[in-house]
Amino acid sequence: MQLEAHIRAHVEPNFQLADLPFSVREVHFEKDTIVTDYGAVEDQVYFIESGIVEVGLLRQGEPRILDFFFPGEFFCSYASMLQRRPSDVQLSALTPLRCQAIHAQELLAAYAHSLFANRLGRIETERLYLKKVKREKDLLTKTAAERYQDLLDEHPQWIQQMPVQKIALYLGIHPGSLSRIRRTVFPHMC
Amino acid sequence: MQLEAHIRAHVEPNFQLADLPFSVREVHFEKDTIVTDYGAVEDQVYFIESGIVEVGLLRQGEPRILDFFFPGEFFCSYASMLQRRPSDVQLSALTPLRCQAIHAQELLAAYAHSLFANRLGRIETERLYLKKVKREKDLLTKTAAERYQDLLDEHPQWIQQMPVQKIALYLGIHPGSLSRIRRTVFPHMC
Repeated sequence: MQLEAHIRAHVEPNFQLADLPFSVREVHFEKDTIVTDYGAVEDQVYFIESGIVEVGLLRQGEPRILDFFFPGEFFCSYASMLQRRPSDVQLSALTPLRCQAIHAQELLAAYAHSLFANRLGRIETERLYLKKVKREKDLLTKTAAERYQDLLDEHPQWIQQMPVQKIALYLGIHPGSLSRIRRTVFPHMC
Repeated sequence: MQLEAHIRAHVEPNFQLADLPFSVREVHFEKDTIVTDYGAVEDQVYFIESGIVEVGLLRQGEPRILDFFFPGEFFCSYASMLQRRPSDVQLSALTPLRCQAIHAQELLAAYAHSLFANRLGRIETERLYLKKVKREKDLLTKTAAERYQDLLDEHPQWIQQMPVQKIALYLGIHPGSLSRIRRTVFPHMC
């Protein structure tokens, strides 16, 4: 998914990249490299053209996975970027990653005058909010098996390529438990 | 907290109510009345001038409290409003409630042309997002006692007035456990 196509579909139908009130540049990350580390103050916003991002969190010193981002999504350590505080999550490339990057300061400056920048920021923040609401309700109301099925339904082309232990860390279950869930979801793989 | 003062402090320093690109009207709810019920499609956005709102969720048929909103905050069943779907949360007045209400359709119409409306929507959605991020991390990393202490630190004037069983439903613990936590936080109350 390209940035221009994404913005035309979700923000402004007649949008062209030349209309952007900030600069973007293409950046690449190799698999398993850190995009934003624990303790860094986020100064970029990224749009994923290809690849998957993992959002790590330390829980009592143990690594957990809080979230994933997929092609066609914006990501950054957003709480860090908005609050200018050290990030308490770590963003890393679960696969080779190709993104369009925006300097946070340029985006924040555009918010002062640009209808487009504010509309983009509002719509993408709404999207992030809805994702959080869904995850919060799912954690309260769904089993790990149901949450795995949801991931599969939403991102069928990606989930089967992701390491089992990463998905288990996200679901908060033992990899062995996830393997049992996968055998019920994909009985032909037994 | 009045709406005009809130917007001047957080969105636009020179703001006056006459500048709003949508209408607002004052509404009142009595204690324990439902503002938005399960299954309703949210068609209002509210700003709390006084009172506390409780956000209820059914977990396997059992009531839970997902969140509270306090004076100076906007609230609505936001996922329902944005997605035009039946609400899976119930908003109710934990105390007598005085709000400024905005018709969702007027707000959404203003988003098409108004820099102010988009800035307001972006900033308030960022705030809601940061609240969700904090709650998600807290659920993963903090004990019920620590989460109770956070509530007290953030809203000292309100929390001690709220029924213990409501706070226990929010923290996901038995009211008896919360009473024990409160005795360690407020030893003078023993």
